[in-house]
Amino acid sequence: MKTLTVGEYLLARLDEIGVKHLFGVPGDYNLHFLDNVISHPAIQWVGCANELNAAYAADGYGRCRGAAALLTTFGVGELSALNGIAGSYAEYVPVIHIVGAPDSRAQQRGDCVHHSLGDGDFQHFLRISQEVSVAQAVLTVENSAEAIDRVIESALQQRRPGYLLLAVDVAQARIPAPSRPLVRELRSSDQAREGFRVAAEKLLQDVRRVSLLADFLADRWRLQPALQALRQRRAIPCATLLMGKGVLDEQQPGYVGTYAGQGSEEAARAAIEQAEATISVGVRFIDTITVGFTQQFDAQRLIDLQPDRAVVAGKLFSPLTMADALGVLDLLFQRYGEQWQEAAPVRAERKSDAAAPLAQQSFWQAMQDFLRPGDVILADQGTAAFGAAALRLPAQAQLLVQPLWGSIGYTLPAAFGAQTANPTRRVILIIGDGSAQLTIQELGSMMRDDLHPIIFLLNNAGYSVERAIHGATQRYNDIAQWNWTALPQAFSLHSPAQSWRVTETIQLEEVMKVVAQTRRLSLIEVVMPQEDLPPLLEKVATALHQRNGG
Amino acid sequence: MKTLTVGEYLLARLDEIGVKHLFGVPGDYNLHFLDNVISHPAIQWVGCANELNAAYAADGYGRCRGAAALLTTFGVGELSALNGIAGSYAEYVPVIHIVGAPDSRAQQRGDCVHHSLGDGDFQHFLRISQEVSVAQAVLTVENSAEAIDRVIESALQQRRPGYLLLAVDVAQARIPAPSRPLVRELRSSDQAREGFRVAAEKLLQDVRRVSLLADFLADRWRLQPALQALRQRRAIPCATLLMGKGVLDEQQPGYVGTYAGQGSEEAARAAIEQAEATISVGVRFIDTITVGFTQQFDAQRLIDLQPDRAVVAGKLFSPLTMADALGVLDLLFQRYGEQWQEAAPVRAERKSDAAAPLAQQSFWQAMQDFLRPGDVILADQGTAAFGAAALRLPAQAQLLVQPLWGSIGYTLPAAFGAQTANPTRRVILIIGDGSAQLTIQELGSMMRDDLHPIIFLLNNAGYSVERAIHGATQRYNDIAQWNWTALPQAFSLHSPAQSWRVTETIQLEEVMKVVAQTRRLSLIEVVMPQEDLPPLLEKVATALHQRNGG
Repeated sequence: MKTLTVGEYLLARLDEIGVKHLFGVPGDYNLHFLDNVISHPAIQWVGCANELNAAYAADGYGRCRGAAALLTTFGVGELSALNGIAGSYAEYVPVIHIVGAPDSRAQQRGDCVHHSLGDGDFQHFLRISQEVSVAQAVLTVENSAEAIDRVIESALQQRRPGYLLLAVDVAQARIPAPSRPLVRELRSSDQAREGFRVAAEKLLQDVRRVSLLADFLADRWRLQPALQALRQRRAIPCATLLMGKGVLDEQQPGYVGTYAGQGSEEAARAAIEQAEATISVGVRFIDTITVGFTQQFDAQRLIDLQPDRAVVAGKLFSPLTMADALGVLDLLFQRYGEQWQEAAPVRAERKSDAAAPLAQQSFWQAMQDFLRPGDVILADQGTAAFGAAALRLPAQAQLLVQPLWGSIGYTLPAAFGAQTANPTRRVILIIGDGSAQLTIQELGSMMRDDLHPIIFLLNNAGYSVERAIHGATQRYNDIAQWNWTALPQAFSLHSPAQSWRVTETIQLEEVMKVVAQTRRLSLIEVVMPQEDLPPLLEKVATALHQRNGG
Repeated sequence: MKTLTVGEYLLARLDEIGVKHLFGVPGDYNLHFLDNVISHPAIQWVGCANELNAAYAADGYGRCRGAAALLTTFGVGELSALNGIAGSYAEYVPVIHIVGAPDSRAQQRGDCVHHSLGDGDFQHFLRISQEVSVAQAVLTVENSAEAIDRVIESALQQRRPGYLLLAVDVAQARIPAPSRPLVRELRSSDQAREGFRVAAEKLLQDVRRVSLLADFLADRWRLQPALQALRQRRAIPCATLLMGKGVLDEQQPGYVGTYAGQGSEEAARAAIEQAEATISVGVRFIDTITVGFTQQFDAQRLIDLQPDRAVVAGKLFSPLTMADALGVLDLLFQRYGEQWQEAAPVRAERKSDAAAPLAQQSFWQAMQDFLRPGDVILADQGTAAFGAAALRLPAQAQLLVQPLWGSIGYTLPAAFGAQTANPTRRVILIIGDGSAQLTIQELGSMMRDDLHPIIFLLNNAGYSVERAIHGATQRYNDIAQWNWTALPQAFSLHSPAQSWRVTETIQLEEVMKVVAQTRRLSLIEVVMPQEDLPPLLEKVATALHQRNGG
């Protein structure tokens, strides 16, 4: 019988699910496992500057590849990563978090070892991890094969983090190699599928106006091809929410824009809300991206697909995967699609104006022109994400945003992860100065690995979103003023990086032309007016101001 | 009756306990409370680049001032800070962690708001905080006065973090002003004190060799003056562990060095361990600083003082504070001290040698010469802390290290906090390159506030401690190579900072002379041999290597 160390077994399972990079920070409790990583033929170690950044990088990688893994050390490392893991939990990214732990005998004795709280209780961090992961295991020699499989399968099936505590001695023990493949997806019941067909058919067979709303869970369950195929049957009006933007091909006929409740463009809102039936796929309504829950749908006209169930006119069908439900809808599109109205063409995009002052409007118009098919775009929570909501993405473009968890600074390390996942695609990061300060050191890791994202650093001298919500001129919304264009050179002794500071639209456009031709890390500091906001953010800020008590 | 907003009430209590600075990062759930902070006459807002750094800064401030406070926002902010709070918990620093939360009605409804996990459960992070704090409260208008007092009193009395969840609407509600002062200390019972006296007297009255070992808990309970007074009665041999270094005046007669079990200098070990009675004050034995638990004491000869109790020859006396127990010992020193042997004078310190190659030995000798009375020194976990163990501190010097929690990168933001607490004292930070990468952005905040710490950045191209424990030449112990001397200028548009790179001992000494004369932020990159370690760390690394399974 072939045997592996527990560490090797775990790596074999990660390899099996497509995780080819392990992000993290070394610590003395995970060094032996790291020996296994370094000698593994298919998995690369990607050291990060700190654990929060590593968690963000893993999340970004997971959004691109479908799953990711993170390695930290007991206590100090895992807790530093916790906010990143919580973001993966909130926004459905399966990150396998492996934590190197003290020798299991030292744990049993309750030794006062470093990285513990000194009280002999080694379960504190396990209990913490239970709040932000769908499965956890304290690995032992006896349970490790079963427990590793269980945690990884749960994480994959639910698209959320799993937690594995791996003591130094356990990592080195030998166990039998995997004997069966992992089960990656939940299964539907025939009964739920058939019930869903009957109910959906009843709603769709006699109507003329059907709309489609797709959101981030459709992205997490990789339903882009299924949605594209459905829309090829009939180009009904369709939209995404900001959180799921990119899951629909925005160049395909039928796309009407980004849906944001009453924050939507009026034509888009009407096309989606005022249908006789709406199909929503993987949608969650969140305060920020609905301008304070202003969405209006009649439950009796709604076909709502969720990861493990569907609800049609208030009636639940479960277990039913979104993929299977979309398969049923594909039949109904074939059967009834011809009677449904196609979407009106959306108005042409505004062209950029090099003579306009550099501000939100001119920046986003220039960005619209800059985008190319296949780009991976990351827009940080704040003016960046809400500005990106109005973009019309090119084909095969992917957008990474984090509107529910909303942790500022997330996208900079996530861009590192996304570029690691997609070494040949263009990765574009748009981030404000206040956000970039939280996680800036990961620039160094990108340059160490010769990655070449294009970074637009929107310098509006502080936390503009907070200013808009409350305290426009208060000192707490100011930040330390950095010399942004000097940072890439400071974060690397060797790698060639380039940086610019632009204060006029024409400069921005010139730099974009240069950047489009090169393959090196580029940082463009875009100087913006302090209180200028993208239109959607203006509406959101007003809503949040009211919700927070004025 | 005078009323205050809940936010103002909380600030009044912080002011009362000597917290004059609030560290943190703004977020839309804490902006109203921040208005109260900005308008408070005695408390200053200190914005940090990210929440982990803010927690570290608060911890450093708390170690200098006796207490500290931290403000973050719900979910994203508080979880980012968690590793810092856990360090404060493990190492006994009372940090009051205030978390701005969504409107309490939105919480009750279970709204899917930003910074929540999206599942309608707003208690996840409260449960997490319970693992690393001694008291917690979800503030309501009704409970807030009582709950604020309870959490702050518990935190002060136990010298550990407290957690306050402050919803935006609650922060603005009005309640009566405080009507009684906070109770800051636990009280001893007369019975415990008298029992302790009898038992301690029995142990001390007929012996000749008495030793004293003091550790970090004596520092946290501010017992420096009491210990100094005791030693003035009789200069018996005394030592600290690395974690409590600075709690004893090392220039006062009787000081024999840093105690580290079998890692101690032999004369120091013998003087402490081979006494007929040993008084230990606030001591915890931890793997790293005892070279793997090699301390040797006979419980029958031990008088062990802990924060709320004492144990004499195995017999427990409680409740008994360390201060009261030291009061009893002061009487016994007067009564019996003359019969106890005084400590032999320690050998003279080696002088630095400008011609020696720049390495651990020459660096620490130069540092010894550089130190002045009253310096605040921070040494990061790794070569810095273990090298600092061999220093002989000048009078009134304070050393901040974190050997139990051991979170690398901690000291850089902690130096920000320490300098904020002590604007006129000299703050010296000694940190390795691998550690500094985790938290480097706080340099910007220091320069924004015109602070002027002196930073020795030990560049040994990676994680030297990890190399020593395992994987000396493995790629995972390498880090991105930064252009260290360019960083201060990159992190500030305006502030004058100075930086040097030194590769020879004579250069280091020349720079130290310059730095001693100026008051601006200084960064000295000290290029060190990659695998050179301070002697104590060499022993510790060998012990950890064995404990981790070789």
